[in-house]
Amino acid sequence: MTVEKLISELNFYNKKAVSRLISIIETSTTDNELVLNQITNKLGNAYRIGITGPPGVGKSTLTNQLAKLFVSDSQKVGIIAVDPTSPFSGGALLGDRIRMNDLANTENVFIRSMATRGSMGGLSKKAVDAADILDAAGFDVIIFETVGVGQSEIDITQAADTRIVVLVPESGDSIQALKAGLMEIGDIFVLNKSDRPAAENAILALKTMLSLRNMTSTSWMPKILNTIASENRGIDLLKDEIFNHKKFLIENDLLFKNRKDKLLNRVKQITIEKLNQILWENNSLSEIEQIIMSSINGTVSPYEISNRIIKNIKLDGD
Amino acid sequence: MTVEKLISELNFYNKKAVSRLISIIETSTTDNELVLNQITNKLGNAYRIGITGPPGVGKSTLTNQLAKLFVSDSQKVGIIAVDPTSPFSGGALLGDRIRMNDLANTENVFIRSMATRGSMGGLSKKAVDAADILDAAGFDVIIFETVGVGQSEIDITQAADTRIVVLVPESGDSIQALKAGLMEIGDIFVLNKSDRPAAENAILALKTMLSLRNMTSTSWMPKILNTIASENRGIDLLKDEIFNHKKFLIENDLLFKNRKDKLLNRVKQITIEKLNQILWENNSLSEIEQIIMSSINGTVSPYEISNRIIKNIKLDGD
Repeated sequence: MTVEKLISELNFYNKKAVSRLISIIETSTTDNELVLNQITNKLGNAYRIGITGPPGVGKSTLTNQLAKLFVSDSQKVGIIAVDPTSPFSGGALLGDRIRMNDLANTENVFIRSMATRGSMGGLSKKAVDAADILDAAGFDVIIFETVGVGQSEIDITQAADTRIVVLVPESGDSIQALKAGLMEIGDIFVLNKSDRPAAENAILALKTMLSLRNMTSTSWMPKILNTIASENRGIDLLKDEIFNHKKFLIENDLLFKNRKDKLLNRVKQITIEKLNQILWENNSLSEIEQIIMSSINGTVSPYEISNRIIKNIKLDGD
Repeated sequence: MTVEKLISELNFYNKKAVSRLISIIETSTTDNELVLNQITNKLGNAYRIGITGPPGVGKSTLTNQLAKLFVSDSQKVGIIAVDPTSPFSGGALLGDRIRMNDLANTENVFIRSMATRGSMGGLSKKAVDAADILDAAGFDVIIFETVGVGQSEIDITQAADTRIVVLVPESGDSIQALKAGLMEIGDIFVLNKSDRPAAENAILALKTMLSLRNMTSTSWMPKILNTIASENRGIDLLKDEIFNHKKFLIENDLLFKNRKDKLLNRVKQITIEKLNQILWENNSLSEIEQIIMSSINGTVSPYEISNRIIKNIKLDGD
């Protein structure tokens, strides 16, 4: 089936078309452009939620329960679960996905796992493209679930309207979140497994760290919520807080502004990626090759060679 | 002291000048270019060795012992220890550096730790720039020691003439090395802590995985060496094997060819980084801003906006 045909059939009820278009984005480096160009006029209806945090804090269970609540409100929910597991740390992907199976069989839910295949940067771009497909298909809520261990996962989360950072009351956990830059990006903080003994201290530590954020009087004040996702406790309050944040964004004219800023960043990333391809893979640019070859003689630094290349760039977009 | 003065004093015996120039590279985003441009004609004498592997396999101890062997051959050794520790995994940096202290006080050794400060990509570039400073200062051997958990650490290792992958006989360790792409990059494999019970099985597993590499009859055949770095066992054989590899590279005209390929990759990376700065930070390019602003209306995809930007790029290097 052609990409055009799949797009014409793109619809919430046609999960097969949704799934195939995401596969095209995942595997092709050229068709993603074709797909995105054709669905852009259908975007903007879905509300995007990012859920991130260290491994093992219960993000999948929380995502699962939250999605069920949205579904019970007659919302159509798309979940993109991104596992950029470091090759040396293993990962609980399979187990998490098995736990989500009951949800996947619900009619109003679509779940897609995306795992890293070599390049992390590529993964975060593909996850955001995949969310556009879900948006165009008519999903009301899109949840990105990612493991927050690096810049690229933070990039994915920043593509969300509301960003939720999940932690557990374990010693050092909140400090590590601070180091990973998660304290700066959270709109809502969730202390999951909050029946554990260290919960009270963890909340105090989180509050202290949140107080270090740069705030103005008109800033959104992130709340710290307690949940026990495995017992479905606290999830309703989390859903309420997501709505509070959405309301805040709309009332302060921030929802559209933030989305525009995110689009701008995405344009920059795509442009640089394209330039990377055009500059080094296009045979017609033999001028650049010649500059490099004549400069690699041990007397010209890579910075100077680079300056010579840039002086000669005249792209016409062909 | 000016950069020019520091460079004029750059010399193996002036560790202060070496240290300050590396600090300049680490902290400045502009002076690194100035430094590199001025030292490039002094490069090419040092032999560069990369040591990588998962956390906790004893890379620091191994580096320590190997450096001592080189020093006893009257070689001047520079060590760049890169710790791109994931914010959620902690890291043994401090302990490792303390263990290296006896070595740091040796006259013929210079040790520099470089830790990640936000951007990993930046770190791998700075580590390679720092190695150039050591090379220009007259060091005979430069050892990069990195934790092999991601692309950027592999990038650093690939700046080396000989790349050593260190593993331990633990179950799954070699599989994870395979997943991380380490099996493809190693010129020498070291099974450290090889007195552990699982050593024999680990060597068999490694041999099997090495046999999967694409080899031609003229390819270098990586050996698997056993070491117990903490007892200084096997390090002499490792040093011999490094010399064997160096000899192989020279005899097959690969040493210069490989270095040229590495320089080419470095030029590409630097060029893209510069373009990133020029395109988005230069106010004179208001044309690009206008394209973006007029296109962000919900009907044009980020890919299409990016194409429009690229069509308008005419850089003159100013």
